[in-house]
Amino acid sequence: MASVPDLRVDGGRLWRRLEEMARIGATPAGGVHRLALSEEDRRARDLFGEWAASLGLSVSVDGIGNMFARRAGTDDARPPVVLGSHLDSQPTGGRFDGPLGVLAALEVVHTFEEHGIVTTSPIEVANWTNEEGARFPPAMMGSGVFSGRFDLADALRAADPSGVTVARAIDRIGYRGAAPIGGRRLGAHLELHIEQGPILEDAGHEIGVVTGVQGTRWFDLVIIGEEAHAGPTPMPRRTDPVAVLGRALVGLYRRVETEFAPHGRLTFGVLTATPASRNTVPGRVRVSVDIRHPEDEALDDMEACLEQETERACAERGAEWRLDSVWRSPTVRFSDRCIAAVRGAAEHCGYRWMPLMAGAGHDSVHTNDVAPTGMIFVPCEGGVSHNEAERITPRQAEAGANVLLHAALNLAGGGSRGPVSCSATNPSPGGPA
Amino acid sequence: MASVPDLRVDGGRLWRRLEEMARIGATPAGGVHRLALSEEDRRARDLFGEWAASLGLSVSVDGIGNMFARRAGTDDARPPVVLGSHLDSQPTGGRFDGPLGVLAALEVVHTFEEHGIVTTSPIEVANWTNEEGARFPPAMMGSGVFSGRFDLADALRAADPSGVTVARAIDRIGYRGAAPIGGRRLGAHLELHIEQGPILEDAGHEIGVVTGVQGTRWFDLVIIGEEAHAGPTPMPRRTDPVAVLGRALVGLYRRVETEFAPHGRLTFGVLTATPASRNTVPGRVRVSVDIRHPEDEALDDMEACLEQETERACAERGAEWRLDSVWRSPTVRFSDRCIAAVRGAAEHCGYRWMPLMAGAGHDSVHTNDVAPTGMIFVPCEGGVSHNEAERITPRQAEAGANVLLHAALNLAGGGSRGPVSCSATNPSPGGPA
Repeated sequence: MASVPDLRVDGGRLWRRLEEMARIGATPAGGVHRLALSEEDRRARDLFGEWAASLGLSVSVDGIGNMFARRAGTDDARPPVVLGSHLDSQPTGGRFDGPLGVLAALEVVHTFEEHGIVTTSPIEVANWTNEEGARFPPAMMGSGVFSGRFDLADALRAADPSGVTVARAIDRIGYRGAAPIGGRRLGAHLELHIEQGPILEDAGHEIGVVTGVQGTRWFDLVIIGEEAHAGPTPMPRRTDPVAVLGRALVGLYRRVETEFAPHGRLTFGVLTATPASRNTVPGRVRVSVDIRHPEDEALDDMEACLEQETERACAERGAEWRLDSVWRSPTVRFSDRCIAAVRGAAEHCGYRWMPLMAGAGHDSVHTNDVAPTGMIFVPCEGGVSHNEAERITPRQAEAGANVLLHAALNLAGGGSRGPVSCSATNPSPGGPA
Repeated sequence: MASVPDLRVDGGRLWRRLEEMARIGATPAGGVHRLALSEEDRRARDLFGEWAASLGLSVSVDGIGNMFARRAGTDDARPPVVLGSHLDSQPTGGRFDGPLGVLAALEVVHTFEEHGIVTTSPIEVANWTNEEGARFPPAMMGSGVFSGRFDLADALRAADPSGVTVARAIDRIGYRGAAPIGGRRLGAHLELHIEQGPILEDAGHEIGVVTGVQGTRWFDLVIIGEEAHAGPTPMPRRTDPVAVLGRALVGLYRRVETEFAPHGRLTFGVLTATPASRNTVPGRVRVSVDIRHPEDEALDDMEACLEQETERACAERGAEWRLDSVWRSPTVRFSDRCIAAVRGAAEHCGYRWMPLMAGAGHDSVHTNDVAPTGMIFVPCEGGVSHNEAERITPRQAEAGANVLLHAALNLAGGGSRGPVSCSATNPSPGGPA
């Protein structure tokens, strides 16, 4: 029988649960199509609920569909340590973005049960509603309403492209629960997630100790020229916003890749020209701009750089421009206590780890508003994510779950063997085949 | 009573017809919405037919809806001199692009009638079907089927965005006529049109003697990078096709604006990124490319330049590219006889004129395949066209019609006063009020 410091999850069991979950909404290319509040999401929730119940956890669902599977602590009045992530996916998403965090949390509790470990604080495994925002914007909806950042009524009114609202979809799958949304203290929130980037893999590390989330600003950049006929209008007579865009792009990439290296990120995801006619010089182009950096001051500088390079390019050709702010997410710093717990757990288990800033949003950004929060990253192959080709190894999943286990033990306290631990005499009690 | 050399159109009458025609499909912003084979097009055709009939012309309609209003010649077996353009418009088009040519031709015939002028060859005023191609691609459809460049069955199958075919639309408005399409000799085709560019206005000239149409090549340029997350993926790890596009654009504009000045034209009318997600580095961008030049050899060089600059930009970032040819229209040279007739008419009337290449396609590109063809341009304000703000003055319209008249007289021969010329005794016989 292992002592508490030697405690490790059952990696095979975790992997089998990941595989079983990945069958719900499985795509031919090996990915997952499991949009929030869809029939596939309902099946995923049902399966999660069954597994939780079979471990003796009590499952509650709140008014936006967030699910909490609770295991009592010896001091059950203490605020719970929540281990959570999400089960919804992108339209052609991968098998691990989200489910790894939920099912590793379940595996942690399973391991506690099996070894008769009781914690001082209660533990809750959370499945946050609609993290992806792919069907219903905005992303990270459930945790956003929970933390008070989003208004419940707004969230329930959000509609998918066919006009179905969150309110209707959540009722249709029967997951509008009776539990109040938020308004209660959490002892901590820990989330295990794949990195969705290549840094850990490139560095040869097994664990990323996430110290926070880089700040992000979204803009629409509009460059305004003058519509003209592609044929008769001589080049010097044109105010061509595409020519301006080319010049601005070159200046911007050059500066971000030098002045803001290695942390600055610059992405133009959406390009449109108006009126989008093959033989008309566009009157305007509109591009989405996504800039990210781990420091808010550097983000200010990047925004200024965006304005300078655009102005310079416009001035050359007499065009005008407008920069519309769409969204701003300041840099997030996670709790020192949670960061220390994750780092300590990685060291305790002997994994190669490094500190890391998350590049993307996660439910932990929202829980960080209301509770000490931390994240654990494991590498994914080639950094590929939001893609059916998303891949991790069973060993990588297991390492992440072991760090989650020891960080949770640290934060929840206790770790003593409880009075009833029959399962500890049976190290392999079946679980989901 | 004016002698033939002194003969001039009635500019006021022409302008009143232009204004009356512009009421059909008039838009609040002063433009016209009169898509090919729409109800508005039917009303425009009906009005044209009434005017032609009131002048004693016999109107025939062919199987693709092209209308020909014929005035007999003294040698009526000779192939007719056709004066034509189109009455359909862009979705938010101007009042002169097309109608000027048709109604000026009608005014020429009206002037002949009024002054008892008979020509040796018959004269036909043509309204070509669907020049714009805005509702049913391709553009210049009616003249293209007439000249044999387009297949009739293909044209009839072309559908608008709501799925209505040309065949259905033409039957619905009752303009599928019994006359055979093409297959007959034309003595010449003359087309008066607004320039749709700023060259005449800039030069202070009243008439453009169009010597041909510059060659045009259309491509889709696809730059293929690699999709990646906007957040976690470091800049040096990206193969960002937008960065490649920026570099290629700068190189291309620089070269076209120097090496191919002043005649080369380069237009990127449509830009798209895939998957068009704000927080994803696009996997590919696709841009439409329109290059034009009055010399086919220079067009070859421009195409090579397009390939070189794209390759250079892709090589810097390890991206790939593909250039799909969409359409090629070689340089068109109009008939020397028609060019001389237009130039002679402009000189005869004492207008300031210059030779000019057309930058855009016109029905005359197609008639040039089967008949000696020429075009007359008049300036339009600021070169603006395909726009509700398209504007010319009554004087500019009149000048164009006078040149059309004398060029037609030259080509049709004769010009003697005929036996019945009662209208010549009444220089202002009403016309459309």
